[in-house]
Amino acid sequence: MTYPIFSDEYFMNEALKEAQKAYEADEVPVGAIVVSDQRIIARAYNMTEKLGDVTAHAEMIALTSASNYIGFKYLVDCALYVTLEPCLMCAAALKWAQLGRLVFGASDDKAGYHTIEYPVLHPKTEIKFGILEPECSELLKDFFRSKRR
Amino acid sequence: MTYPIFSDEYFMNEALKEAQKAYEADEVPVGAIVVSDQRIIARAYNMTEKLGDVTAHAEMIALTSASNYIGFKYLVDCALYVTLEPCLMCAAALKWAQLGRLVFGASDDKAGYHTIEYPVLHPKTEIKFGILEPECSELLKDFFRSKRR
Repeated sequence: MTYPIFSDEYFMNEALKEAQKAYEADEVPVGAIVVSDQRIIARAYNMTEKLGDVTAHAEMIALTSASNYIGFKYLVDCALYVTLEPCLMCAAALKWAQLGRLVFGASDDKAGYHTIEYPVLHPKTEIKFGILEPECSELLKDFFRSKRR
Repeated sequence: MTYPIFSDEYFMNEALKEAQKAYEADEVPVGAIVVSDQRIIARAYNMTEKLGDVTAHAEMIALTSASNYIGFKYLVDCALYVTLEPCLMCAAALKWAQLGRLVFGASDDKAGYHTIEYPVLHPKTEIKFGILEPECSELLKDFFRSKRR
């Protein structure tokens, strides 16, 4: 039996489904999944409002969940897909986890980790971005538009 | 009735008690407490090994616990006492929380937030450090010495 090889777009779409759940829960719509060996081992969306906890970003919850799943705190063989560029807190957490691969959709020119001139991520973490960027970005814009109404 | 006003040394000693618990649990010995209106509202120590989770630093657990206690995600009127200078992840989390005051014991020239030239903490967070530095530092040195034996 052969297994299908899923694309980055496929997995980002799964992260987008999580972001959509955040949107419906009136949270800033960011979603993340962790993939190991072509399987999704963790799913999460931003829960800062529901949990009243600034650390409850999608990436942080996904990271903790993935570590629990594999029973190991390092995620060297895992990829994290997230709809928005990680902030400094999340990027630093991904460094501690020695994440193998980071894929994000929309860039965050305000709070994204790239806004500081310092290599926040682990040097071995592969990075890819811009996957389904229009969809990831539009969901966020739509959320903030609805808030200004 | 008047309440006693506790000193920074008093509260750092309470954080040290948490660090000691980490030591006894074979974790890198870092402890933290959160204080609001002269009362300790959260206590935590590093649990990265026990939980198999790189995000389980003392500060992160204390922050989440304090937010749960006050029912609000911002800690503008709180002080966090931690035995070791926060790393980038924790400092960025404290920024999100708009922490009122940060007091730490030992500096961390390897992974502390001051090692990058960027104002990681919130601009309104007051900072004090070096409180019970010898005790905070010695506990860490003792831990790493025992690991090299």
